[in-house]
Amino acid sequence: MKTVVDVAIIVGSRSDLKVIKESVEILKKFDLSYTLNIASAHRTAQHLRQCIQNAENSGVKVFIAAAGMAAALPGVIASETVLPVIGVPVASGNFSSLDSLFSIVQMPKGVPVATLAVGKTGAVNAAILAVQIIAVSDKSLKEKLKMYRDKMSKDVVKDDLDLQEKGIENYLEELKN
Amino acid sequence: MKTVVDVAIIVGSRSDLKVIKESVEILKKFDLSYTLNIASAHRTAQHLRQCIQNAENSGVKVFIAAAGMAAALPGVIASETVLPVIGVPVASGNFSSLDSLFSIVQMPKGVPVATLAVGKTGAVNAAILAVQIIAVSDKSLKEKLKMYRDKMSKDVVKDDLDLQEKGIENYLEELKN
Amino acid sequence: MKTVVDVAIIVGSRSDLKVIKESVEILKKFDLSYTLNIASAHRTAQHLRQCIQNAENSGVKVFIAAAGMAAALPGVIASETVLPVIGVPVASGNFSSLDSLFSIVQMPKGVPVATLAVGKTGAVNAAILAVQIIAVSDKSLKEKLKMYRDKMSKDVVKDDLDLQEKGIENYLEELKN
Amino acid sequence: MKTVVDVAIIVGSRSDLKVIKESVEILKKFDLSYTLNIASAHRTAQHLRQCIQNAENSGVKVFIAAAGMAAALPGVIASETVLPVIGVPVASGNFSSLDSLFSIVQMPKGVPVATLAVGKTGAVNAAILAVQIIAVSDKSLKEKLKMYRDKMSKDVVKDDLDLQEKGIENYLEELKN
Amino acid sequence: MKTVVDVAIIVGSRSDLKVIKESVEILKKFDLSYTLNIASAHRTAQHLRQCIQNAENSGVKVFIAAAGMAAALPGVIASETVLPVIGVPVASGNFSSLDSLFSIVQMPKGVPVATLAVGKTGAVNAAILAVQIIAVSDKSLKEKLKMYRDKMSKDVVKDDLDLQEKGIENYLEELKN
Amino acid sequence: MKTVVDVAIIVGSRSDLKVIKESVEILKKFDLSYTLNIASAHRTAQHLRQCIQNAENSGVKVFIAAAGMAAALPGVIASETVLPVIGVPVASGNFSSLDSLFSIVQMPKGVPVATLAVGKTGAVNAAILAVQIIAVSDKSLKEKLKMYRDKMSKDVVKDDLDLQEKGIENYLEELKN
Amino acid sequence: MKTVVDVAIIVGSRSDLKVIKESVEILKKFDLSYTLNIASAHRTAQHLRQCIQNAENSGVKVFIAAAGMAAALPGVIASETVLPVIGVPVASGNFSSLDSLFSIVQMPKGVPVATLAVGKTGAVNAAILAVQIIAVSDKSLKEKLKMYRDKMSKDVVKDDLDLQEKGIENYLEELKN
Amino acid sequence: MKTVVDVAIIVGSRSDLKVIKESVEILKKFDLSYTLNIASAHRTAQHLRQCIQNAENSGVKVFIAAAGMAAALPGVIASETVLPVIGVPVASGNFSSLDSLFSIVQMPKGVPVATLAVGKTGAVNAAILAVQIIAVSDKSLKEKLKMYRDKMSKDVVKDDLDLQEKGIENYLEELKN
Repeated sequence: MKTVVDVAIIVGSRSDLKVIKESVEILKKFDLSYTLNIASAHRTAQHLRQCIQNAENSGVKVFIAAAGMAAALPGVIASETVLPVIGVPVASGNFSSLDSLFSIVQMPKGVPVATLAVGKTGAVNAAILAVQIIAVSDKSLKEKLKMYRDKMSKDVVKDDLDLQEKGIENYLEELKN
Repeated sequence: MKTVVDVAIIVGSRSDLKVIKESVEILKKFDLSYTLNIASAHRTAQHLRQCIQNAENSGVKVFIAAAGMAAALPGVIASETVLPVIGVPVASGNFSSLDSLFSIVQMPKGVPVATLAVGKTGAVNAAILAVQIIAVSDKSLKEKLKMYRDKMSKDVVKDDLDLQEKGIENYLEELKN
Repeated sequence: MKTVVDVAIIVGSRSDLKVIKESVEILKKFDLSYTLNIASAHRTAQHLRQCIQNAENSGVKVFIAAAGMAAALPGVIASETVLPVIGVPVASGNFSSLDSLFSIVQMPKGVPVATLAVGKTGAVNAAILAVQIIAVSDKSLKEKLKMYRDKMSKDVVKDDLDLQEKGIENYLEELKN
Repeated sequence: MKTVVDVAIIVGSRSDLKVIKESVEILKKFDLSYTLNIASAHRTAQHLRQCIQNAENSGVKVFIAAAGMAAALPGVIASETVLPVIGVPVASGNFSSLDSLFSIVQMPKGVPVATLAVGKTGAVNAAILAVQIIAVSDKSLKEKLKMYRDKMSKDVVKDDLDLQEKGIENYLEELKN
Repeated sequence: MKTVVDVAIIVGSRSDLKVIKESVEILKKFDLSYTLNIASAHRTAQHLRQCIQNAENSGVKVFIAAAGMAAALPGVIASETVLPVIGVPVASGNFSSLDSLFSIVQMPKGVPVATLAVGKTGAVNAAILAVQIIAVSDKSLKEKLKMYRDKMSKDVVKDDLDLQEKGIENYLEELKN
Repeated sequence: MKTVVDVAIIVGSRSDLKVIKESVEILKKFDLSYTLNIASAHRTAQHLRQCIQNAENSGVKVFIAAAGMAAALPGVIASETVLPVIGVPVASGNFSSLDSLFSIVQMPKGVPVATLAVGKTGAVNAAILAVQIIAVSDKSLKEKLKMYRDKMSKDVVKDDLDLQEKGIENYLEELKN
Repeated sequence: MKTVVDVAIIVGSRSDLKVIKESVEILKKFDLSYTLNIASAHRTAQHLRQCIQNAENSGVKVFIAAAGMAAALPGVIASETVLPVIGVPVASGNFSSLDSLFSIVQMPKGVPVATLAVGKTGAVNAAILAVQIIAVSDKSLKEKLKMYRDKMSKDVVKDDLDLQEKGIENYLEELKN
Repeated sequence: MKTVVDVAIIVGSRSDLKVIKESVEILKKFDLSYTLNIASAHRTAQHLRQCIQNAENSGVKVFIAAAGMAAALPGVIASETVLPVIGVPVASGNFSSLDSLFSIVQMPKGVPVATLAVGKTGAVNAAILAVQIIAVSDKSLKEKLKMYRDKMSKDVVKDDLDLQEKGIENYLEELKN
């Protein structure tokens, strides 16, 4: 029996792994299966095509790709599949991260990449979006999403209650520790 | 029997309609059903919540939202649903469209908006992405996507053949007419 | 007898508190009463509406809101009240803070947010602006503002006198210590 | 008996008048009295100080200032009064309007300018904000604001109903005419 | 006998042809042979690889690629060849052309794209650079380059002499006609 | 007797002449003598050095240079003289004019270029600054500057008086005609 | 006998002193006399006017002003004098320093500020420019400038000789120590 | 017998050496000969022309130039030679490095500079591009390039295999050590 993989994650280089780890943790939290590969659009075009092909063969439902600078990776994946491709721009230290954002979000007509925020925030949200996409046809996953959102909301409200109780000085003092 | 709607499209104001029309035409091409509403996050918060509620009740699978300037619409929709929300930044004439792009793409952890290119290109791709998302669990739709992509590819190759045949001067001359 | 609150401050997350503390200190200096809540436009839409409602019920005169990235918070508050809403963009580390500035300042017609500088400078000025707004109908508060401004002015002049006396080398040396 | 003026509007040059006209129309709609002057911070420093002094003498409650490029006008007014000063950046054709936005919003600690969107949208909202500020101590004006907001909201909902009735093709066709 | 082609030009879409025509005219002026293809990195990945392969087979020495938005084309070509690849960013109307510039210039280590100015200026210079590259081992071509540069220089000096003779008013008047 | 020239103006290409004409008109108004040359830093390095040398020989006091894109002209002049060099960035249609501004204003230590606003405003001010520099040791020229400034100031005040008399509707109507 | 001051330096706040110290050192190197004041355009408008008046009375020839954020200081000085005003933008940590650059360089017609690079480089060059301006009518100062430039040039050539002698590895190693 | 030099590298100042060292190492790896000079376009115009002349005399094939801020160096070299000139923008700490990028990439028609990424990445790629250019007429060098590219590709694939074997947690842990 073929094992089905839910999400295929690909990063452009080793240095993107510490960003994409945030996606991995979200997928684990939702019990989704995933593969994670390093494959550069510019340095390993063939290896990348192999990774995409393997993912398609394993019945993957969504791709997540993270890359920096002239971040062609998500777009190149999108050119090779009709599955949804989610892109995470990684900061490279120059141009206020606009280079990776533009290279991912400004795709031409017909080949979309679903783009998220730069860095770790984007990596978390890439995984959540992947869950949302799979949950479109999976009611129990959708319920998990609602519970996740609910907990997130309650955490903020709890922060607020803590703040009311302690006052801003004490609260900030505790945040430091 | 409840009629199921595939995609709920919401725009922030009348002026966004000529952009979002590109999404509508793609959805029609793929025989997906949709609703289209004008609802501003800032001017009609209650009407917007009603539209989101109606969409959820009709079994919608994906939201598409287009807005300009401090484009809060896609994010506010994302805060009210766990369905995938796709955002299209609309150019407003100032700040090289960075205002609407940033307001949509830079969502906080836990509440993603799948962001696409600015303007009509983004509107086309928002609809394609919606189709891709629904096609995750719909094989025949996935086949249609492959055919669409295939045709798109052939059109470019045909352009190239035309160019080879005519030469650049003639080709450019004909493009003008 | 209902206690009247002058200013309702809302921040989007715990991390914005160290910025908004600057507002709190100014309000204290002018003996204005305030509430301070954590409520995210995207994560806790309902809790936020409750905070706004509570503030309105307590007779609040001005809102101050601080948020970063796709900073929808000030705009969402402005959509729920006709009281003046003051927005403070918080730096998030990407895009030179343009993301939060644009998300706050570029509000559509009819729903203004009074926007100030990024970060702590903006937080100080948000509180001063709140004082100025309340002082429009409060002569003694207006006198306090004049005295505050006067002191601020004298402090700069005193800096200048110190500099004249000590010379730039000694002055810079003392600044380091 | 001294006539009280509600709002003093100052623009940096003749070319800013067609932008600020939007503010004037909003103030008229709310039956607020106003003065309107042309006074440049850089070309007519003394005339500007005279305008500010006259406004203060006439009991004005709020200043609105519009200017472009190195838009020092709102900040210079703010340095001469403790009344709330509202700034409207005017596009000058270069630097995507960032020059006027930054010159107005990035005021130092202690001297706030309440900054709004660039151009006519900002001019409308500057006047709404002025009304909101004056309404803090004027209940009937606050009621007018609620009615204005309510009408604005209903207009959007009516647009939406029109759209539902006509469909997007007809609707867009009519928008052109 | 195999015909050798000097330069392979590839554009991402029909709309880039009017820009790249400037390159064609320069290559003709220097009697270099060229091929010109339309092939999109995102829409026709396979056709693009075929074009690159054909070019390599024909003994091409340099690639020139022009593309807009998330302009992956030059980088994808660079990933498939070790020949010099020259990239021309094409303006797409958003983000002041920064999207195409960043997508081309910010290539990762090991896979350079020689990037030139945006639009027609860049297209002219892409062709000159191609000529310069080929002239490294072609003395007579290098002589032609020196003559071209010399003529360019003399044209500017002639403009200057004209200006001295006619004065600025007359000169500007003639420029209009 | 050697004729002394006050100001040497150099532009990078014919297309910069319609911008620099504003400088010429100001210099004429102040009865300063000037030379005007077209000389490109990149295309006619030798001709440029000749122009600079000629200007130095004629006893010129100040240089004004206008250029666009990678606007090296003012900096190259500054590298060849110790006279004050004034730079005017010319808009080239891309990157919101930041390319020419940065190329002129960001000179390294030891080789300043006095940079002014982009385009015609900068060209006017370049000439005023040249007048101010020469007036440092020329009392009658300084008097002319004061009269010029005075007239400028009175013109704005007159605009204001006109506006008071006519009201904004009539005033704007007349501006159109 | 009235003591003549050559250059009046004004900074907007204490924190700008460590930048402007670079100007002071250059002026000392050229034996020019100077005054140095702290005076904020926004916080101490009257003190600033007094400083400008004092400088004018002492026969000052050039103003240098350094300020950050909405850096109105150089422009306000320029509005009060017809002497040359040199502006140094100071980085404030947000918006990549564009806020202070635009607030200084984008002055309206008739009121120029000679703008230099951001930070310490600009402060050095502001002083050099002041020396250049004064040297227009002071031959011995012009000779000093030539010697300064000559020494600067020789220092770079000496760096180059050192590099040739030591090789890049040794040279870089020594730079670290 | 005249020794032929393959590549002439020139940097604008000592501080650019640690960036350009990356180019040197690549050239060594490919056994290409090079010269390395410090010569500033703005401070040592004559020394720079001498360096260019020496390089031309030694039969150099390509220039590489690195500079920051108003980075005129690559363009000035391009104006003095018809050999290919490769430019590396060096970050200077302000304006997100856009100043040096624009000063290098936006060259006028006829005088191209082949521009690469900012900083060390650009320095590596500048050298690779130089190798590619020389390899156009040097088959064995072209073979070395293919081997280099092949090794680079295999290194990424090996990273990927390592990752598969160790899992992301272990892999990231090892990266830290």
